[in-house]
Amino acid sequence: MATIFTKIIEGQIPSYKIAEDDKHYAFLDIAPLTRGHLLVVPKKEVDYIFDLEADEYALLQQFAHKVALGLKSAIPCNKVASIVLGLEVPHAHIHLIPMNSEKDVNFSNPKLQLEAKEFQEIAQLIRSHIN
Amino acid sequence: MATIFTKIIEGQIPSYKIAEDDKHYAFLDIAPLTRGHLLVVPKKEVDYIFDLEADEYALLQQFAHKVALGLKSAIPCNKVASIVLGLEVPHAHIHLIPMNSEKDVNFSNPKLQLEAKEFQEIAQLIRSHIN
Repeated sequence: MATIFTKIIEGQIPSYKIAEDDKHYAFLDIAPLTRGHLLVVPKKEVDYIFDLEADEYALLQQFAHKVALGLKSAIPCNKVASIVLGLEVPHAHIHLIPMNSEKDVNFSNPKLQLEAKEFQEIAQLIRSHIN
Repeated sequence: MATIFTKIIEGQIPSYKIAEDDKHYAFLDIAPLTRGHLLVVPKKEVDYIFDLEADEYALLQQFAHKVALGLKSAIPCNKVASIVLGLEVPHAHIHLIPMNSEKDVNFSNPKLQLEAKEFQEIAQLIRSHIN
């Protein structure tokens, strides 16, 4: 059965898309820790990220690098954090999270409540900063 | 001035070394969240990890991939988490942390207190599982 992320990639579930190529997809996390918090996923369905082959993993991270540069440029922050935990959805994903302090990236924090219009504006802003 | 990680890489400060190649170095975190918690760093001194060039970043992650496979094989765990925050030491570093639940990777948790002998045994165990 397709994972929720595969359904997002295939458009069966809508998402605020940030970037895409033939092997990768990036979209806003709808339960963000901070404005601009997004997810980068391989289109290949794999649960554990390190089960990707070394070259697949490197390509995924290279895609994430490009997205992270655009994210940092779009959203004022100290740094963009990169976090892979992978315990909730069985489809590997990299969290890219604009942060100003370590507290910003505590996953037990309450998530931001944003309107659809705000998500759309954030997504458009980040997209416009990705080369 | 050299960062503390450069001093570790150059051997001026001792470390429990896990792996090394010409551009990268991996060693145990001496304030570990879990047994086997380690750091992967580029030898190049760069504060913010996404300031690495795309190809440098991909190579660093490919090195981390190899180390993570060995770590998972050496230390029983659900998954190995990959976390880059980068607010404490101004030299980019990837935390690789064996975890069984999300709580394991909360950086505000108290750190494990291990004896030098335990660190040595853990390092040797992980090294023996890296291809």
